[in-house]
Amino acid sequence: MNDLALGIDIGGTNTVYGIVDRRGEILSKGSMPTKGHATPEDFMAALQERVEPLMHEAGRDRLRGAGVGAPNANFFTGEIMYAANLEWKGIVPPARLMKEALGLEVRVTNDANAATIGEMMYGAAKGMHDFIMVTLGTGVGSGFVANGQLIYGHDGFAGELGHVIAVRGGRLCGCGRHGCLETYTSASGIVRTAQEWLAERSDASRLRGMEPLTAAAITEAAQAGDALAKELFEFTGKILGKTLADAVAITSPEAIILFGGLSHAGPLIFEPVQRHMEASLLRIYKGKISLLPSALNGADAAILGASALVW
Amino acid sequence: MNDLALGIDIGGTNTVYGIVDRRGEILSKGSMPTKGHATPEDFMAALQERVEPLMHEAGRDRLRGAGVGAPNANFFTGEIMYAANLEWKGIVPPARLMKEALGLEVRVTNDANAATIGEMMYGAAKGMHDFIMVTLGTGVGSGFVANGQLIYGHDGFAGELGHVIAVRGGRLCGCGRHGCLETYTSASGIVRTAQEWLAERSDASRLRGMEPLTAAAITEAAQAGDALAKELFEFTGKILGKTLADAVAITSPEAIILFGGLSHAGPLIFEPVQRHMEASLLRIYKGKISLLPSALNGADAAILGASALVW
Repeated sequence: MNDLALGIDIGGTNTVYGIVDRRGEILSKGSMPTKGHATPEDFMAALQERVEPLMHEAGRDRLRGAGVGAPNANFFTGEIMYAANLEWKGIVPPARLMKEALGLEVRVTNDANAATIGEMMYGAAKGMHDFIMVTLGTGVGSGFVANGQLIYGHDGFAGELGHVIAVRGGRLCGCGRHGCLETYTSASGIVRTAQEWLAERSDASRLRGMEPLTAAAITEAAQAGDALAKELFEFTGKILGKTLADAVAITSPEAIILFGGLSHAGPLIFEPVQRHMEASLLRIYKGKISLLPSALNGADAAILGASALVW
Repeated sequence: MNDLALGIDIGGTNTVYGIVDRRGEILSKGSMPTKGHATPEDFMAALQERVEPLMHEAGRDRLRGAGVGAPNANFFTGEIMYAANLEWKGIVPPARLMKEALGLEVRVTNDANAATIGEMMYGAAKGMHDFIMVTLGTGVGSGFVANGQLIYGHDGFAGELGHVIAVRGGRLCGCGRHGCLETYTSASGIVRTAQEWLAERSDASRLRGMEPLTAAAITEAAQAGDALAKELFEFTGKILGKTLADAVAITSPEAIILFGGLSHAGPLIFEPVQRHMEASLLRIYKGKISLLPSALNGADAAILGASALVW
């Protein structure tokens, strides 16, 4: 029948997997720690042990293939390249290893691209031909869809909105450059702003002395009316809104979808992003771009997105 | 046979037109002033008078259709919207008028998109699936190609790289916003920089007192070794190079092609753009992006690009 797909998302901490049908129903799923495996081969063996029973239960001959989302994964080569938050360094070939282990055709892409495809097939971007997906997690990832197709670019590395320079000469980024969007508007970015402001300023805030200081804690404080926390969202939303206005001028999308991490703060982040983006847009785009939350829940989105690579 | 196309480029000053075959050979061509026609209908009548003999000569039944490039033209609606440098204001429907006048199916797009398609079919981007075309004329226009297709965006207005904010809080742009790329790196932008510097600084330069000061004059001065003129190219190339590095992070192109106006300055502009772009690129893109001059000559490129819309 070939009507099912295996979706696997390899995250820095956990790997989630599931069997998904064409309509995006997850028939079975599970998770395991990504860490604690000496080599990629050991990790694949452990994953195979977990996944085999699910495959057996669903019926092996119904499986059309497997899709894998992973940080820095390349759609064209099927490899993970120098991922900063995975234990295995250098180039890891999950497509080949998984094909050997599971006997399935495997397609690989980076986690933000997988989420974008999931959103297009089953989520808020269903039926859209031109949209941008932005993930606000530990870093900022993105997927650009134009003419109904995900933009992979010449070498599979398109969609690095998190490394567009939002502030010239700004903060040092993990990539070695300065002012990248993700140093300001990721979940870690807003924490970094909070730490700077708390060190520089003396106004009262419930965030003062909080340990560990997290994006979730900043969200809670803002919801409880903390002025500094609310200002943090305004500042973060302004930087994101202005950068999105520039991205709009390139691909002219119908919608921008915010996903993960900081997007869970809801209106606290959506309102300033929308306002600053609108104020910064070229006239021909004004009032035309919807800013939407993802319609997929976090854990399932990763599985759905990865599985959608198969179709 | 249907093996020929009519290509028409409506510019602010002149309109050029020609009959082109599938291989990009221009069989016949001509030009007429765009200005001096009271209404779009008058202009179309005058154009029809010029074009009919060419169509007759080529053989009417060999013509498959017409393609039109014009400022602010929209591929989806076939209309020219509020073009700043055309005499007719409001919304002009060239696709409908031309269909009535010539009895041909007509496709319309903006001039930068037409040039992009021309370059992809007959020029430096032949065979490329992912590239960016940047026109450095009175303004800065662009066309983005991904997955082998031009990105029109949801409403046909994609590719406005000239209105990406290159300098936050920078120069006032004709669009009413501040710091747009085209206020710095168009042919007019480099002249604007020259005028500012000549007013602020006192160093000797052959550009001092020159009237009118043009991009061509700045190019000549730089070629003759004028220090200030050379510095103007370095400054302009730096702003363009940094903005291109950000655009690369979105679509990951194989090449960027510079076209028109300032691109004729050759190494004077290519060298600093390439150097600053490379220095600003995220590591995964370094050394991979070719910066190329257009392979089509200016006047013909407009006709070729417009005609290519037909195929």
